[in-house]
Amino acid sequence: FLPKALRTLDYMAPVRSCLLLVVVSVWVQQVDGVWPLPQQLDQSADRNSLSPQRFSFIYGRDSAAQTGCSVLDAAFKRYFSIIFPDFTKGSGLLMSENKSIRYTSVSNSDESYNLSVSEGQAVLRSVTVWGALRGLESFSQLVYQDDYGSYFINKTEIVDFPRFAFRGLLLDTSRHYLPLHAILKTLDAMAYSKFNVFHWHIVDDPSFPYQSRTFPDLSNKGAFHPFTHVYTQSDVMRVIEHARMRGIRVVPEFDSPGHTLSWGKGQPNLLTPCYKGDVPSGSFGPVDPTVDTTYKFMESLLKEVKFVFPDSYVHLGGDEVSFACWQSNPNVRTFMEKMGFGKDFTKLESFYMESIMNMTAALNRTSIVWQDVFDYRERIPQDTVLEIWKGETYQAELSRMTQAGHRVLLSAPWYINHISYGQDWRNSYAVQPQNFSGVWKQKKLVIGGEVAMWGEYVDATNLNPRLWPRACAAAERLWSDEEKTLDADLAFPRLEKFRCELLRRGIQAEPLFVGHCKHEYDGL
Amino acid sequence: FLPKALRTLDYMAPVRSCLLLVVVSVWVQQVDGVWPLPQQLDQSADRNSLSPQRFSFIYGRDSAAQTGCSVLDAAFKRYFSIIFPDFTKGSGLLMSENKSIRYTSVSNSDESYNLSVSEGQAVLRSVTVWGALRGLESFSQLVYQDDYGSYFINKTEIVDFPRFAFRGLLLDTSRHYLPLHAILKTLDAMAYSKFNVFHWHIVDDPSFPYQSRTFPDLSNKGAFHPFTHVYTQSDVMRVIEHARMRGIRVVPEFDSPGHTLSWGKGQPNLLTPCYKGDVPSGSFGPVDPTVDTTYKFMESLLKEVKFVFPDSYVHLGGDEVSFACWQSNPNVRTFMEKMGFGKDFTKLESFYMESIMNMTAALNRTSIVWQDVFDYRERIPQDTVLEIWKGETYQAELSRMTQAGHRVLLSAPWYINHISYGQDWRNSYAVQPQNFSGVWKQKKLVIGGEVAMWGEYVDATNLNPRLWPRACAAAERLWSDEEKTLDADLAFPRLEKFRCELLRRGIQAEPLFVGHCKHEYDGL
Repeated sequence: FLPKALRTLDYMAPVRSCLLLVVVSVWVQQVDGVWPLPQQLDQSADRNSLSPQRFSFIYGRDSAAQTGCSVLDAAFKRYFSIIFPDFTKGSGLLMSENKSIRYTSVSNSDESYNLSVSEGQAVLRSVTVWGALRGLESFSQLVYQDDYGSYFINKTEIVDFPRFAFRGLLLDTSRHYLPLHAILKTLDAMAYSKFNVFHWHIVDDPSFPYQSRTFPDLSNKGAFHPFTHVYTQSDVMRVIEHARMRGIRVVPEFDSPGHTLSWGKGQPNLLTPCYKGDVPSGSFGPVDPTVDTTYKFMESLLKEVKFVFPDSYVHLGGDEVSFACWQSNPNVRTFMEKMGFGKDFTKLESFYMESIMNMTAALNRTSIVWQDVFDYRERIPQDTVLEIWKGETYQAELSRMTQAGHRVLLSAPWYINHISYGQDWRNSYAVQPQNFSGVWKQKKLVIGGEVAMWGEYVDATNLNPRLWPRACAAAERLWSDEEKTLDADLAFPRLEKFRCELLRRGIQAEPLFVGHCKHEYDGL
Repeated sequence: FLPKALRTLDYMAPVRSCLLLVVVSVWVQQVDGVWPLPQQLDQSADRNSLSPQRFSFIYGRDSAAQTGCSVLDAAFKRYFSIIFPDFTKGSGLLMSENKSIRYTSVSNSDESYNLSVSEGQAVLRSVTVWGALRGLESFSQLVYQDDYGSYFINKTEIVDFPRFAFRGLLLDTSRHYLPLHAILKTLDAMAYSKFNVFHWHIVDDPSFPYQSRTFPDLSNKGAFHPFTHVYTQSDVMRVIEHARMRGIRVVPEFDSPGHTLSWGKGQPNLLTPCYKGDVPSGSFGPVDPTVDTTYKFMESLLKEVKFVFPDSYVHLGGDEVSFACWQSNPNVRTFMEKMGFGKDFTKLESFYMESIMNMTAALNRTSIVWQDVFDYRERIPQDTVLEIWKGETYQAELSRMTQAGHRVLLSAPWYINHISYGQDWRNSYAVQPQNFSGVWKQKKLVIGGEVAMWGEYVDATNLNPRLWPRACAAAERLWSDEEKTLDADLAFPRLEKFRCELLRRGIQAEPLFVGHCKHEYDGL
C-alpha cells in the first residue's frame, strides 16, 4: 500500500487561464508549417529574433493561472529546452520543477487557444491550461534557427481549436510487454501531435501485466513474468501523471468477456470451461456470464479501476467473443434456457455487457465499448461511447450508430499496426470521419477517433518507428480543418519537417522518404 | 593522408588452424537449436556445466593459429562476454585485446568447422580462422542457463559448412545516411547469423557520402552534409576492420552509369547534359559514356577503391539506366552513329560497362554487376559475377545466366526493405536458390545470395528492427541444408529463440509474434 498522500485523487475543475509569452527582437525570412495544421494561421515574413538569455514565459497579470500551476510551470520548463536545445544541453535547466503532484483528471475540456506573435512579444490566450499546452506546442514549432544558430520566429497569428474532442492512441501491452520508458516516450510524442487520449489496452489473452491491488494473482500468474513484465501501481501512477502534465487522458481498457485467457490463470472459476462432449476439455473460453461470482469479481475490479484511473471513461471491450465454448458448456446452455435466450448467444453477451456497463455507470464512469456490443443489441445505455474497429464497413456503421443516437469513436481506418511498403500515412490522411450518410446531428456524434497499435508484431524494439510519423496523419485529421488538409502532397513537406523535429526531440520517427535531417536520430 | 603504416594492406593466406575449447563439468537437460542450422547436429541430453571462472579458450598444440592471431584472440574476448554476460558485465573483460591491426582480405575461403562438446572440454577444428569464427558462434548458441543462472552445454557433435560461399547483406547509405555505429552494429548481427559479405551500396543518386581522397568534391558537394553525413577514410577503415574481425568481406558498390546524380555535383562534365530540343535543359542524366574524361575519372576512382577496399570483388552496378537523356543529347547521338550502335542504347551502356569492367580486371579485381548488364549483352568477362534483382522472373534469369556460364548471386526474392504485415520472413525462407531449370553444373554457378535493405524508407531509426530477425531467414537458406530446413513451422521456435538471443546481445530485433523474451530490448 502506498502512503495516503499519494493515493488521494484530487479532482480539479479546468483552470480558466490566459497567459503571456514574452519574446524579444526583430527581422525577415522563412514561413513554415505547424503540425497538425492550426484552424487559422497567418504568418508574415517579418522575422523576430529570440534570445535564449532574454526569453521568458510570463503569466499574464489577468491570468487565472499563475506561478504554482504545476501543469504550466512544467510545460514552460519542457518547452524552453525544446525551443532552445543548444542552450539547455548540459547547462542544466533554468526553471525549477514543481514537485507537488496532484492527480487531476483531464476532462473533455476546451483546448482552444489564440497565439499572436509580434515584435518583442507573443501572447498566448486560452480558456484552460490544456489549451495553453496546445498553444505552447504550436509556438515551439514556429521557432527556427538560421544557418548561424540564431533563433527566430515570424510574426504570426493563430486561432486554433481541435476539430474533434477525442484524439486517441491505443497501445497494447498484453501481446507484448512495453516497458514504462516506452510508454512515457509515446506520451511525449503524442503531445507533440496534439493527441489527447492514451487508450491503454493493458490486458488481453496473452498476458495480464496490470498489478492489481485487489487481485494480485492476476499478474502474479497471468503476466509474462510476475516481476519484470508487470505495471505496478506506482508505474500506472507515473503514466497517468506524465500524461496529465501533457494534457493527455488515460483511458484503461479491461476487455471482457472475450480476450481474457490470461485472467483465468490468477482467478479460478472466472472463465467458462469448454466441453468436449460431456466432459470439460481442459481449455477455457470467455468469462462465464452465468455465475454470480463473475459479477462480484468484475465489480471489485472495476471499483479498483475507478480508484486507480481518474479518467471519466473506462473501456470495457466486448469485442470478438467466440460463442463455441459457451455453446459447449451444459451450465451455460441451461442458463440460456432459463433466461429465454434460445440459441442466440449474442443475447448472452449483451446480458453480460449490460451488467458491467451498469456497474460502470453506478461507479460514475462512462463506458466505451467496441462495436460488437452495438452490433449484437441496439439497446445500450445512451451515454456509452461506441468504438468502430471493423475495417470494411465503417461508414455504414457510423450511420447506424449515430442514427441510434450514440456517440462514436472511429478507429477502423487507423489500425496502423498494419504496415505496408511505402508512404502508407497517406491512407490514414485520406480518412474522412464525417463522410457517411446522415444528418448534421449525426455527424456531431462522432466525437473523435483513435490510432491503434496492436501488439502482435510490436514491442519496444519497433514501436516508435512504426508509430511515428505514421500516427501524425490521423492526428492532423482529428485536429485540423478537413477542407484545408485534403491534399496529402501539400501536407508532405510540412510532415517531413515535423518528422525531423521529432528526431531533434529524441523520438525515433522513421523517414517518410529519401533525404536527411539536420539532427538525425541517435547522433552521426 | 594517413600515416603509411595504416595504409599498408597486408594480404595474408588463410591460416590453417585447429583449436581447442576447454570446458569444465557435468549433467542432464534441454536440447536446443542453432541458427542457421548446422549441416549435421547431434545433441544428447547429457548436460555439462560451465564455470565462467574455470572456462577458457585454448589454442590446440598442433594448431597453426596460436595466441597473437588477432582475429581469434578478439573473437575469444567477444564470445566470452556473449556466453557469460552476467559474469563480464561491469567487471571488465578478461582477455587482452590484440591492438595490432592487419588489413587482411577475407577471401572466399573455407568456413567449415567441426565442433565436439563432451565432458570437460569442447574441441573446435577448422581449416581457417574464418571457420573457427563460425564454430565459435555455434558454440555460443549452445550454451544456456538454468533457472538458477548456472551455465550448461549439452554433449554435442557438429559437422558444419556453408551451402553457399557468398552470403551477403546490402545496406544503402545514399538514400539515407547511416551513421557508423549503425553499420558496425549491423556487422555484429550479421556475424551472429553467419553472413559473410557486407555489400556496401555506398553512393547513389540522392547523396555521395564516401569521402574520396582523390576527388574530395564528390562528398563535399554531393553528400547530404559535407561533414556530418560522410564516411571518412578512417570510418571506412573501421568498417572494413570490424567486418574482417568477424569474417565478413566488404564489397563496395560504385554504381554507374545510372544512379549517379549526386556524383555530378562534385565532378563537372561527368554526367550527360539532357537536352530539350536543341538546348540543354539544365538537368542531367547518366554518366556521359562518350568522352575520354569520363573513363579517366572512373579509372582514378577505381584505383582509389582498390586501394581503400581490400576485397577482391568490386560491385560496378550497371542497373536501371534510363536512355531518355542520352537520346536527347546531340553529342551522344553523334557518338552512337560513329560507333555504329544505330538507335540501340543498350549497346552504348554495354560499351561503357565493358570499359569499366576491363579497368577493374586490369586492377586485379573481380567485377559484380546487376543483371541489366547481362540482359543487354551476353558477352561479358567470364569471371564477372551477375546479381539478380528483378523479382518476377528470377528463376528464368538464373537459367539463362548459368547457361551462359556465369557465376550468379540471387537477391531478387530477398529485397527485405519491402515490408508487409505479419510473418513475412516465411517468404524469404521459402526461397530455393537452385530450383531452376538447368543441369548440376549450372546450379553450382549460383555462388550465393544477398539480402537487400534499400534505403528509400530506412535510416537509423528503423534499420535494425527491419533487418532482424527478418534477414535471418535468408541467412539460414544460404548456410544450411535445404532438405533439413524446408519447413518454416519447424524453424519458427528456433528462430524465436535466436531472436531473443539477438536481444540479449543488444540487437534491436523485432518480435516474430506474440510473446516475450527473458532479456527484452533496452531494459524493462
